[in-house]
Amino acid sequence: MAGRILLLVLFMNAVFFIVNAVPETCPADLGGKCGEDGEWEGEFFPEVPKIKYEGPSSKNPLSYKWYNAEEVILGKKMKDWLRFSVAFWHTFRGTGADPFGAPTKYWPWEDGTNSIAMAKRRMRANFEFLSKLGVDRWCFHDRDIAPDGKTLKETNSNLDEVVALAKELQGDKIRPLWGTAQLFMHPRYMHGAATSSELGVYAYAAAQVKKAMEVTHYLGGENYVFWGGREGYQTLLNTDMERELDHMAKFLEAAAAYKKRIGFNGTLLIEPKPQEPTKHQYDWDAATTLNFLRKYGLLAEFKLNIECNHATLSGHSCHHDLETARINGMLGNIDANTGDPQVGWDTDQFLTDVGEATMVMISVIRNGGLAPGGFNFDAKLRRESTDVEDLFIAHISGMDTLARGLRNAAKLIEDGSLAELVSKRYSSFDTELGAQIEAGKADFEMLEKKAMEWGEPKVASAKQELAEMIFQSAL
Amino acid sequence: MAGRILLLVLFMNAVFFIVNAVPETCPADLGGKCGEDGEWEGEFFPEVPKIKYEGPSSKNPLSYKWYNAEEVILGKKMKDWLRFSVAFWHTFRGTGADPFGAPTKYWPWEDGTNSIAMAKRRMRANFEFLSKLGVDRWCFHDRDIAPDGKTLKETNSNLDEVVALAKELQGDKIRPLWGTAQLFMHPRYMHGAATSSELGVYAYAAAQVKKAMEVTHYLGGENYVFWGGREGYQTLLNTDMERELDHMAKFLEAAAAYKKRIGFNGTLLIEPKPQEPTKHQYDWDAATTLNFLRKYGLLAEFKLNIECNHATLSGHSCHHDLETARINGMLGNIDANTGDPQVGWDTDQFLTDVGEATMVMISVIRNGGLAPGGFNFDAKLRRESTDVEDLFIAHISGMDTLARGLRNAAKLIEDGSLAELVSKRYSSFDTELGAQIEAGKADFEMLEKKAMEWGEPKVASAKQELAEMIFQSAL
Amino acid sequence: MAGRILLLVLFMNAVFFIVNAVPETCPADLGGKCGEDGEWEGEFFPEVPKIKYEGPSSKNPLSYKWYNAEEVILGKKMKDWLRFSVAFWHTFRGTGADPFGAPTKYWPWEDGTNSIAMAKRRMRANFEFLSKLGVDRWCFHDRDIAPDGKTLKETNSNLDEVVALAKELQGDKIRPLWGTAQLFMHPRYMHGAATSSELGVYAYAAAQVKKAMEVTHYLGGENYVFWGGREGYQTLLNTDMERELDHMAKFLEAAAAYKKRIGFNGTLLIEPKPQEPTKHQYDWDAATTLNFLRKYGLLAEFKLNIECNHATLSGHSCHHDLETARINGMLGNIDANTGDPQVGWDTDQFLTDVGEATMVMISVIRNGGLAPGGFNFDAKLRRESTDVEDLFIAHISGMDTLARGLRNAAKLIEDGSLAELVSKRYSSFDTELGAQIEAGKADFEMLEKKAMEWGEPKVASAKQELAEMIFQSAL
Amino acid sequence: MAGRILLLVLFMNAVFFIVNAVPETCPADLGGKCGEDGEWEGEFFPEVPKIKYEGPSSKNPLSYKWYNAEEVILGKKMKDWLRFSVAFWHTFRGTGADPFGAPTKYWPWEDGTNSIAMAKRRMRANFEFLSKLGVDRWCFHDRDIAPDGKTLKETNSNLDEVVALAKELQGDKIRPLWGTAQLFMHPRYMHGAATSSELGVYAYAAAQVKKAMEVTHYLGGENYVFWGGREGYQTLLNTDMERELDHMAKFLEAAAAYKKRIGFNGTLLIEPKPQEPTKHQYDWDAATTLNFLRKYGLLAEFKLNIECNHATLSGHSCHHDLETARINGMLGNIDANTGDPQVGWDTDQFLTDVGEATMVMISVIRNGGLAPGGFNFDAKLRRESTDVEDLFIAHISGMDTLARGLRNAAKLIEDGSLAELVSKRYSSFDTELGAQIEAGKADFEMLEKKAMEWGEPKVASAKQELAEMIFQSAL
Repeated sequence: MAGRILLLVLFMNAVFFIVNAVPETCPADLGGKCGEDGEWEGEFFPEVPKIKYEGPSSKNPLSYKWYNAEEVILGKKMKDWLRFSVAFWHTFRGTGADPFGAPTKYWPWEDGTNSIAMAKRRMRANFEFLSKLGVDRWCFHDRDIAPDGKTLKETNSNLDEVVALAKELQGDKIRPLWGTAQLFMHPRYMHGAATSSELGVYAYAAAQVKKAMEVTHYLGGENYVFWGGREGYQTLLNTDMERELDHMAKFLEAAAAYKKRIGFNGTLLIEPKPQEPTKHQYDWDAATTLNFLRKYGLLAEFKLNIECNHATLSGHSCHHDLETARINGMLGNIDANTGDPQVGWDTDQFLTDVGEATMVMISVIRNGGLAPGGFNFDAKLRRESTDVEDLFIAHISGMDTLARGLRNAAKLIEDGSLAELVSKRYSSFDTELGAQIEAGKADFEMLEKKAMEWGEPKVASAKQELAEMIFQSAL
Repeated sequence: MAGRILLLVLFMNAVFFIVNAVPETCPADLGGKCGEDGEWEGEFFPEVPKIKYEGPSSKNPLSYKWYNAEEVILGKKMKDWLRFSVAFWHTFRGTGADPFGAPTKYWPWEDGTNSIAMAKRRMRANFEFLSKLGVDRWCFHDRDIAPDGKTLKETNSNLDEVVALAKELQGDKIRPLWGTAQLFMHPRYMHGAATSSELGVYAYAAAQVKKAMEVTHYLGGENYVFWGGREGYQTLLNTDMERELDHMAKFLEAAAAYKKRIGFNGTLLIEPKPQEPTKHQYDWDAATTLNFLRKYGLLAEFKLNIECNHATLSGHSCHHDLETARINGMLGNIDANTGDPQVGWDTDQFLTDVGEATMVMISVIRNGGLAPGGFNFDAKLRRESTDVEDLFIAHISGMDTLARGLRNAAKLIEDGSLAELVSKRYSSFDTELGAQIEAGKADFEMLEKKAMEWGEPKVASAKQELAEMIFQSAL
Repeated sequence: MAGRILLLVLFMNAVFFIVNAVPETCPADLGGKCGEDGEWEGEFFPEVPKIKYEGPSSKNPLSYKWYNAEEVILGKKMKDWLRFSVAFWHTFRGTGADPFGAPTKYWPWEDGTNSIAMAKRRMRANFEFLSKLGVDRWCFHDRDIAPDGKTLKETNSNLDEVVALAKELQGDKIRPLWGTAQLFMHPRYMHGAATSSELGVYAYAAAQVKKAMEVTHYLGGENYVFWGGREGYQTLLNTDMERELDHMAKFLEAAAAYKKRIGFNGTLLIEPKPQEPTKHQYDWDAATTLNFLRKYGLLAEFKLNIECNHATLSGHSCHHDLETARINGMLGNIDANTGDPQVGWDTDQFLTDVGEATMVMISVIRNGGLAPGGFNFDAKLRRESTDVEDLFIAHISGMDTLARGLRNAAKLIEDGSLAELVSKRYSSFDTELGAQIEAGKADFEMLEKKAMEWGEPKVASAKQELAEMIFQSAL
Repeated sequence: MAGRILLLVLFMNAVFFIVNAVPETCPADLGGKCGEDGEWEGEFFPEVPKIKYEGPSSKNPLSYKWYNAEEVILGKKMKDWLRFSVAFWHTFRGTGADPFGAPTKYWPWEDGTNSIAMAKRRMRANFEFLSKLGVDRWCFHDRDIAPDGKTLKETNSNLDEVVALAKELQGDKIRPLWGTAQLFMHPRYMHGAATSSELGVYAYAAAQVKKAMEVTHYLGGENYVFWGGREGYQTLLNTDMERELDHMAKFLEAAAAYKKRIGFNGTLLIEPKPQEPTKHQYDWDAATTLNFLRKYGLLAEFKLNIECNHATLSGHSCHHDLETARINGMLGNIDANTGDPQVGWDTDQFLTDVGEATMVMISVIRNGGLAPGGFNFDAKLRRESTDVEDLFIAHISGMDTLARGLRNAAKLIEDGSLAELVSKRYSSFDTELGAQIEAGKADFEMLEKKAMEWGEPKVASAKQELAEMIFQSAL
């Protein structure tokens, strides 16, 4: 026990810093109380009502202004287009810490331990939060929801205990959008998990994914995600990239096989990110990940989970990576967040830009929706946002923004003039020769003959400014 | 004729600017003269001697300090490792213009026309330049070396005339490292060539590539390059990305078929670039291009031409994109240049960083060299470098840097301690279980059992600082 | 004359490329005709009516949906808050050329020459354009509006001739928002103008600015701008930065003195830009420029012209640089455009992001407006936009976006809740001790005593998500 | 006490993660032992000898290959040019944690507490480390070296206790290059210290700086540093930037006054950084900081501490920011590190690029050295480098790189051809008219007359490629 405390203190050094007294930021004191057994009595968010749709003219921060779950847009309910999910890690394990700062958040239900009792209390808070927001899905890493034990066996048993409670709290309606294994935080994963230079770590990671997949399946999860935060390198000088990529492929192959073995029907999703924490991550962006999957014959077993902030860090617009996934038939899920255009790291902010949200929803509508995927709010409060109500405000704002994007996208589609502008641009291919070209039957000799015959081709304006005007007018 | 002149003046507006008098920068006056028929008499570079190897202590800018063509390094002559090529467009058609500036270079052999006579004179200058540098390869776009005609037929005939001269001047020793078609400068290509929204442009581009491939073959070219500078988009709002990518695939398929039809055995190379001139180019980086080739079944027909400045613009180190190409068996050629780490566009500078050059050469050596590819200097003088001798200095500096990189890479390989550091890191996989994993025979159940047995894995230091120390000591 | 043509052709090489026939993109043929004397007869834009305000529900691209010039917002007419200006260079001299592409635009009134007659015809087109848009201001470089002559004297006389026509066409209502000298395009300026390493260039630049200031004054211009596109360096290896900065200061000092000498009362504006065309420009951003002005005692003589695309290239939001200028009392003018967040060069796009426009207008309202400055559309059509109507659509879209931003900003200000959120955050300083601190009367000993007394300070949530919600709801 | 442990555990959540058992990475077991009283007996680094100069051919990682402390270069000993300092925080408090990962480093002398006894033991390790490296200077934050107490008074007393030991261990030769106050880690500083929206925090920060300045003075520190990691904003929507900047000025004014009051003669240094942790930091870069100091009349009281990784994050080369500081007479100290050119956050790597080091040393030599400043290694081991010897290897590599840079810079200066190239470029100003211009006596009328007289100026090649060749040859 002493050893454990010592180690905790040692970890503290991570943040170079120690505090002896009470938290200094202002926790919302909502009057909750802990019983003797550590079970929380009463509500977690007593001052927050169930969030309702009040329409755009409402000034109430704790109401939806654009998201009206049951309203039908383009033939489908808003909630079915949007399939929102709360990310357990950001919302219930986020502390506000950053590389230069200690935690800032002290939620009233936290007792300062990482005990199983605390894990269960947090899980109850999660379900009250979901219920008040009116959201039916949640996402988790194995290590967010239950503490590590002394051995893998004990860790798995801790996980089982918390998962059993989650299953009970889920009831009929709520289920995980996806589960995943946290393969990046523990020092054992410092060189990677599937791509670690150490075989023992590869095996450990396999065991961890196996269990995480099992509990996701048990909870009725609809998808399972792989984010390879440590699958990459810090420098090529000490790295055998080829061997690491081969290992990653074998690992994912075994994961896909195990999924079938246990009868889990959820989609396996890979989440690209170009870098951070490593200098270079192998799942750099959608196209890079697709290349990997194609090379190793894994395309049929996986889809992509596109995160907007990751897309922009890799030099693309979010819309670009969504479309790259979509036209390859690989758009499985969206991690709904945004970055700061002037910042070179992942800020995981809630998306509040309506234009961006409209672009995102255009891709989603073209994809016929995301099911069994959805929108996971992989987004967090700013470090300086320390009120309990900020958790609600942030989610409401993110949900309203996407709902507004959906409304705008529907308006654009119903209006039709943007789509018409695009199809007209390519109309010269809607011809016999166009069909031949598209069928691979137009060889260079034939094309040269045509080019000689026709003389200089006419090229029309691309009408970008008009397209932008149409788009902006719909916002 | 008047129309032509008017149009020229109109083009001038491209640079917002007109000059009536003599060039204002100081052209090197090397005393050359034009005969009546426009043929240049005497040398182009009379004051520049044949460049010789003088060793590192030489202070003579017009000498090699590290590049010693016939010297054997790791069992191969330097010239065979390096296979240098001069890029005709930068060296003989570069004017120093930029988006905010008119041309600055007035080479003494230029008469100010774009006539066939001038094209031929320039070609003679090219071969004198190659000969004085001691370089055996050159690269060209079709439109660099010969002027457009009024029709495609006339344009092709102009090209034939200049190519015939080039063939003659090449002699036995010199040949193109590669040829290519310029599918980005002319306004007809403003929406792309293979991905243009206009079918007529697709056909025209096919005819142009057909001819460019023919002349490359005729000249004994060893490779043929596709750089899709306009194959991309400015905004997704007006673009059907899926259809454009399909067209690009059909185009490349037809190109590969035509190559076989004419018996051209050179390698077809695709050159990735993330953006510029378009906002997004489809051949973004090595991995993206590989994904495209795999998707459309074109992998066997193409290799990659990696340009360092393009790699860094896409967010990778040059070494990363070289290794990505190499481990996929796709490293075909290198466009040897560098960018400025603080600049967000393609600067096409001559590489002078010895550390970078050493990393590049490590990849090349691992690849067993680049043949039939090589190093093309897709690099240009700075706008402000206006002396004829600057052309030589820049090439010498670039060649010496890569030669020095080769020497350092060889030193590192012969020393062996860096390679040993790497192979030791992965030695836990050089075991029976490692072999099973790598053969795809280790399933999750078996791995979990091992993980349970073994307990917490041990993870060793990655020794990055030691690797960097070894690397830097070799420079 | 032959020499001139030769040189033109040589310049053509700037774009590596030549065309012999008619333009290939589709010029709008508006039926205009040239008289014998080169004067254009009839309208330039016969198919474009005077643009009117039709309100947000209009589907007519050639109407204003949010800009209603005479409508009063926060006590001032929209046209007085916005003071729009058309940039002559982009709109009438932009050709669509880029570093990899020849011009794409062939306006029907262009005859392909850079003659004085053509310059005058273009000027007439400019005034018809202004009139149809309902815009009262325009901006110009000296070299945009009139051709270079053989000597500086002849050049000045060309300028005088065109300026006389502009004066006549301006009438009572229209005047330049600002004029400026083009000190970056001509090869003489390749090393800079005021910071050139050549004294002769320094003198030439002085003469050019002198004249440009005179004609701006003559035309009733309200401001005069310095954009130092070549005042910077490509590499520090060949640069004496200290001496160059000293020269720049002397140059600006002389400019300010000359302004007084001729009785010109317009504001002198410096326009920061971090780089492009040079690797590093001395007027990097607002703060850097202010440091320079303070160092050399020039602060009272200049204000800043903030360009949004330049601000973002320097790593700031546009709003940041506007606020930096504003709180230093130095916000003089705005170059209204935007960049692409994924692109590393100046794209000079028309701003169409309503959120961004709202942020911009918040700064403008806080500044009490911009007069005698205004909003200059330093923005251009995309290369691929080749219809005459695109010129109108782009400007309408840019004007409507800022008008919408103004309406939103007014809504936010009238609502007051965002301002209240901010002032509440700092309310602890609205106390006696706060006043002492702000007056510089609180020393460390006193503050330490307070800190000891008070114990751990309480720190409230920053409410960023709430602020974002309030902001987005106003859009 | 229980409260304290709970809180520690809560902090742990910062890294989402808990470990119950022994550290998993391999600590170097150097056989050290703790006595009963917690005092470490015997050496900390028994297997590391005193590091000696062995010259470039040595293969011993624990030797200097280029740094030869007593060797005279350009009239000064290497140790006097370089004045190296070890950063206590990275070397003794760095844990390898990152935003996605728990600590990885378990040094054998750490007992897992943040006790005063542990603080003292760490301090002993620091001095053994300095002594084995042969480095005479060290840098610290107040909170690195001693633990927080329950009150500020207790915290100060903890600090005094550890400082007393440091003073004793310093002996005659060793002293702090600088001290500083850590005003960014504790949650009280989440909105800033001098720029916090809370007055109580401003006072607390003042008290903390007062004390940190006192102990720096007591230890004989040569400088005192301000790094404003939280002096900035996350969004302008909730920020009064003007008021915050005013507060920052008053704070620094009070600091400068207090320095005089206590007779501390060290230089006050401000360390610019553009962003991270905040989205925008007020001390963005050298020029921005100089503007601030000039505006508030603080220029005479401060100098700059330039950090290379910060310079590159702000879009400049390190050399640029060094030169900007130097030519303003403000270069006081260098934080010697480097970033990764493809990474958008502060990586604080040890500089190993010899070219970069040569550029840095050119600035230092021009500055006549840095004294009383020096080179502080604000650089850390990679997360994955977990051997004790890695601490030595990293520092040796960083020292050798700068030493090699010094040797190269001296070679370049002694050779003189680069300096000659530069001075020749500006020689047209070494004339009578040049002198008049530089004295501010050349008005626009006189310059225009000259420009008319002279005609078109001649502009010579900038010889960038030659300059690069000369530079590279010296490496």
